[in-house]
Amino acid sequence: MSDTNSVKPNPSFDVNQSSFLKAIAQQIRGQDVYGVYRSWSDELLLKPYIINKQKKREIPIDGDVDPMTVSRIMAFYRAAAACIEKETGLLSQVVVDLNHEGFGWILVFAGNLLLVRKTIRDAHRFGYDSLEKVAEDGEKLIAKAVDLAKRFPEVGKL
Amino acid sequence: MSDTNSVKPNPSFDVNQSSFLKAIAQQIRGQDVYGVYRSWSDELLLKPYIINKQKKREIPIDGDVDPMTVSRIMAFYRAAAACIEKETGLLSQVVVDLNHEGFGWILVFAGNLLLVRKTIRDAHRFGYDSLEKVAEDGEKLIAKAVDLAKRFPEVGKL
Repeated sequence: MSDTNSVKPNPSFDVNQSSFLKAIAQQIRGQDVYGVYRSWSDELLLKPYIINKQKKREIPIDGDVDPMTVSRIMAFYRAAAACIEKETGLLSQVVVDLNHEGFGWILVFAGNLLLVRKTIRDAHRFGYDSLEKVAEDGEKLIAKAVDLAKRFPEVGKL
Repeated sequence: MSDTNSVKPNPSFDVNQSSFLKAIAQQIRGQDVYGVYRSWSDELLLKPYIINKQKKREIPIDGDVDPMTVSRIMAFYRAAAACIEKETGLLSQVVVDLNHEGFGWILVFAGNLLLVRKTIRDAHRFGYDSLEKVAEDGEKLIAKAVDLAKRFPEVGKL
């Protein structure tokens, strides 16, 4: 984890307030086959998602996107997919397609319905000002996807 | 072009019989910024799509997928997307997401509708027995996508 790129988490915000943040922590723990993070708090696990503007500017955008950053993006959208599944019952897939310049597509789909269709740029600098912002962005995404799934249930079940 | 991996095209089959094959040739020519293929016939351009079983077995599947193979896969699905657009008016995007083992997703979507949702394996060995087979496979794909687009026009236009 590139801890050097992150700032201290805001102690006033509790991860347990957001089911989306808890879902991200779960995704990270699910990948943690060696149990490195077993004793870590969720706050600590999510810390690398917080990158302030100044730190962002310091991350070089030449070369491939850092694999840790890619796995953070994957965990973010897989967590969103898990939350969408909980609300709609639709099992969804996450596809992240980034080119060497950090541009690309993030897609979450169930059946033939695209629940999330997002272009990303500067993927190298993926991060948020605070955990609240992470939660906010994720929940907005989930609400939109759940709405879509409810409007077009047949497409999602194809 | 890995011409060594392909066999002689069947002279009895005319590329002009298939609008899909012509669309692939168009895709390849569209990428040909230096005019290398200007004097090539469409048959010659499409030759690398023909790989017989024995030749397939000779292609190693360790290591990354050959960039020429990836660009062939892209041209195939971009051509399909172009044909779908002609029939439905929907502008679509192609996303090919392959891992290092040649497994992955091929997605073609318009709006929030996934027109093509395909998993691929052994992408290293992408190829067909004959041009007829290429045309057949492509046309099947297009027919299915056009059918979907007509069933769910609102989703495709989101």
